[in-house]
Amino acid sequence: MAENKLVKEITSMDEDFAKWYTDVVKKAELASYSGVRGCMVVRPYGTALWENIRNDLDSRFKALGHENVMMPMFIPEGLLQREKDHVEGFAPEVAWVTHGGEEKLQERLCVRPTSETLFCDHYKDIIQSYKDLPKLYNQWCSVVRWEKTTRPFLRTMEFFWQEGHTMHETAEQAIAETEQMLNVYADFCVDSLAIPVIKGKKTDKEKFAGAESTYTIEALMHDGKALQSGTSHYFGDGFARAFDITFTDRNNTLQYPHQTSWGMSSRIIGAIIMTHGDNSGLVLPPAVAPVQVVIVPIAMHKPGVTEKATQLCERLAKSFRVKIDLTDNSAGWKFAEYEMKGVPLRLEIGPKDIENNQCVLVRRDNREKSFVSLDCLEESIECLLKQVHDALYEKALARREEMTYPVSNLDEMIENAANRPGFIKAMWCGELACEEKLKEVAGVTSRCIPFKQEHISDVCVCCGKPAKHMLYWGKAY
Amino acid sequence: MAENKLVKEITSMDEDFAKWYTDVVKKAELASYSGVRGCMVVRPYGTALWENIRNDLDSRFKALGHENVMMPMFIPEGLLQREKDHVEGFAPEVAWVTHGGEEKLQERLCVRPTSETLFCDHYKDIIQSYKDLPKLYNQWCSVVRWEKTTRPFLRTMEFFWQEGHTMHETAEQAIAETEQMLNVYADFCVDSLAIPVIKGKKTDKEKFAGAESTYTIEALMHDGKALQSGTSHYFGDGFARAFDITFTDRNNTLQYPHQTSWGMSSRIIGAIIMTHGDNSGLVLPPAVAPVQVVIVPIAMHKPGVTEKATQLCERLAKSFRVKIDLTDNSAGWKFAEYEMKGVPLRLEIGPKDIENNQCVLVRRDNREKSFVSLDCLEESIECLLKQVHDALYEKALARREEMTYPVSNLDEMIENAANRPGFIKAMWCGELACEEKLKEVAGVTSRCIPFKQEHISDVCVCCGKPAKHMLYWGKAY
Repeated sequence: MAENKLVKEITSMDEDFAKWYTDVVKKAELASYSGVRGCMVVRPYGTALWENIRNDLDSRFKALGHENVMMPMFIPEGLLQREKDHVEGFAPEVAWVTHGGEEKLQERLCVRPTSETLFCDHYKDIIQSYKDLPKLYNQWCSVVRWEKTTRPFLRTMEFFWQEGHTMHETAEQAIAETEQMLNVYADFCVDSLAIPVIKGKKTDKEKFAGAESTYTIEALMHDGKALQSGTSHYFGDGFARAFDITFTDRNNTLQYPHQTSWGMSSRIIGAIIMTHGDNSGLVLPPAVAPVQVVIVPIAMHKPGVTEKATQLCERLAKSFRVKIDLTDNSAGWKFAEYEMKGVPLRLEIGPKDIENNQCVLVRRDNREKSFVSLDCLEESIECLLKQVHDALYEKALARREEMTYPVSNLDEMIENAANRPGFIKAMWCGELACEEKLKEVAGVTSRCIPFKQEHISDVCVCCGKPAKHMLYWGKAY
Repeated sequence: MAENKLVKEITSMDEDFAKWYTDVVKKAELASYSGVRGCMVVRPYGTALWENIRNDLDSRFKALGHENVMMPMFIPEGLLQREKDHVEGFAPEVAWVTHGGEEKLQERLCVRPTSETLFCDHYKDIIQSYKDLPKLYNQWCSVVRWEKTTRPFLRTMEFFWQEGHTMHETAEQAIAETEQMLNVYADFCVDSLAIPVIKGKKTDKEKFAGAESTYTIEALMHDGKALQSGTSHYFGDGFARAFDITFTDRNNTLQYPHQTSWGMSSRIIGAIIMTHGDNSGLVLPPAVAPVQVVIVPIAMHKPGVTEKATQLCERLAKSFRVKIDLTDNSAGWKFAEYEMKGVPLRLEIGPKDIENNQCVLVRRDNREKSFVSLDCLEESIECLLKQVHDALYEKALARREEMTYPVSNLDEMIENAANRPGFIKAMWCGELACEEKLKEVAGVTSRCIPFKQEHISDVCVCCGKPAKHMLYWGKAY
């Protein structure tokens, strides 16, 4: 049977999670490998998913007064070098353009790995007075980082993202923006992607190159590994000083503005796959699913079925992203195909249903079937999509809670990190040495200092000295 | 007065058209120069304009069944070289990446100047049977061509565009697609941008590198120069053969598919500026204007004015892209500012208007004032926006007709090309030699062989031999 054939083609997630992941990416036709090392081809289904993510986030940004701009993709070497920490962080992993046509360039250009330097170079020209502030800019683009090993969406040489870059009169305003944008990301994950996240601050070791502080949202994947899903950085006036950006404040004094940047990337598609997916393939949250309802006519050869299904499709297209499959593949093949693609609801309609003025709706997440009247079909779908969303969120949250546990000494940390996947909560003294040691002996990195602190013990899990914070630790993508 | 000050800052278009153009780009805050040679920063106003253009075109593409994808930005040198004419056309003008971090690459990568080769490399993997055809893909991205001299939007090293790439079972279907997409571009120009265009075919000399034929739409700018505004290419099966893309047809025979590509770029923003702009700045067609109506309250200090204007703004935001200016700049300054930015309609409302339950609407294109009742404000605005659109189109069409004239011999061609800007209609024998000679002696290039042919004379304007076609000739951007 075609259905079985398809299902068999995916590796089970328990058997080999990494292989399951790439199987889903390929079989759900999200992306495929390209002839360019480390770069992927994002296929129509993956691109439609990314466009829905982009449109959702973009309207959240714009509602808060942000404006989009389009910056050059190249950064001259001298510009990249302007801020010391930043260049140290990024120079080792950029692609260098050295020739234009036949001509050798006098100054190398790197393909942007991130655009702080370009934004600063522009802000220098357009910020003179406090009246010019805040500047709340964002751009949607792709960036390049020369990665050694790559995996579709999770880590690719070129990836797609948005990067917000803002400038403010005061440190307080910039910090408020940094926090606000982290909340936007967290709300988006919860409301649109059904992914629960931990909000917190990165340690100095893990923060962004050139930032004073980095905030992060961390999600837990099905296999117990963490995925950093969005970050928001506060820069203070470090870049402003390096780029000599000044403004006349309300007291007519020259000041440096305070800066933030924040980004979410196409790796969030990896988070969706690894949070909700199962052994039949992808499971998509309704808010961003390219197809929310797929219509599969049953016994298509019977008179009236195709017509009725087509009518329904036209009717539903006014309220939902809907697709009808009128190909001559078997119903079983179609079921498997749209399960693989994670379509939240399947609508089946056959001769008997038509007689009874009803259809069948099947949820992708738990395969629950409902027979619903065609009279109130929109309401039923609306309601079921909401139920799917909520169930996905609850399931992911329950799994995260089950996979999160406290440890209070080094042996426990090593033992658990080795045997029990998930988030580890443990106290930390604040010293880099302990962070490095935990990576070395337990293979975990600090994920974040969560805003919601808990008291696990009084002392650092590593050195036993007085603890400063409770941290989430784990293995990460 | 602030108004005069602003107006004075633009060079008059009669005095220096090129300077007028860059003044408008800068003062209307569409784009500014960046620290990266030949690359621009597209500012929020320019980006919003581009987003409106993108969304409009994108929905036209999708309505015809096209799907978006995202391809890598790099092309390995070997891949670019696969199709002989194509590499000859593009290799001299690409940016080469030679290093990733510290490591020297074994094979250079160029930053895509266009993506035929990448699409073919992907199509090779996903096309097996006639059931896989047609493939109707498009992508929105930026591309890089190493230009010597650049001007914002018109010719920049990096520019923004969409590139459609499709594969078909038969030559007929591919040619139909090529023509269909040219019509989509032409309709978009007419319906959304109010720009009249000539549809036609490029000569072999002017066609795209690797194409069998290139169709084009050509618009005439205010200064009498032509601007190629969108192109659509038919490739036959040349790339398919070079990339070994085959499919099993309906008779179970292996065939090469037939290919098209088509693109419209951010240079269309240059066309908007140079078609509709005037000495007060930009004039934007309502369908793509980032702000369609700007509300300027009059006598803002008088009680109730700001409140009423704000209420109107909220009300109109449901139907239009509307903005209110509540800054303490003078009304005169605001008038000049939004004229510079080309906002199609200005809504003025002051204490007397409020008393009379009315407001004033002023058209940007001809400064015509209407007093309209607040009761039917939406209808009045709708109607005026349509009038603005139609008037812009009629004006541009009248100017083009006035600036288009036939010539029938070489002396006339040289004389007219030197002294009379515009489109020149003249017969051509079809020989490259004549095309080259006309460029040399008259400084004109062939713009297109229009689909609507006219008979000017029996013989080629250059060599006097029997003519094959009537062509549009001119100086071009």
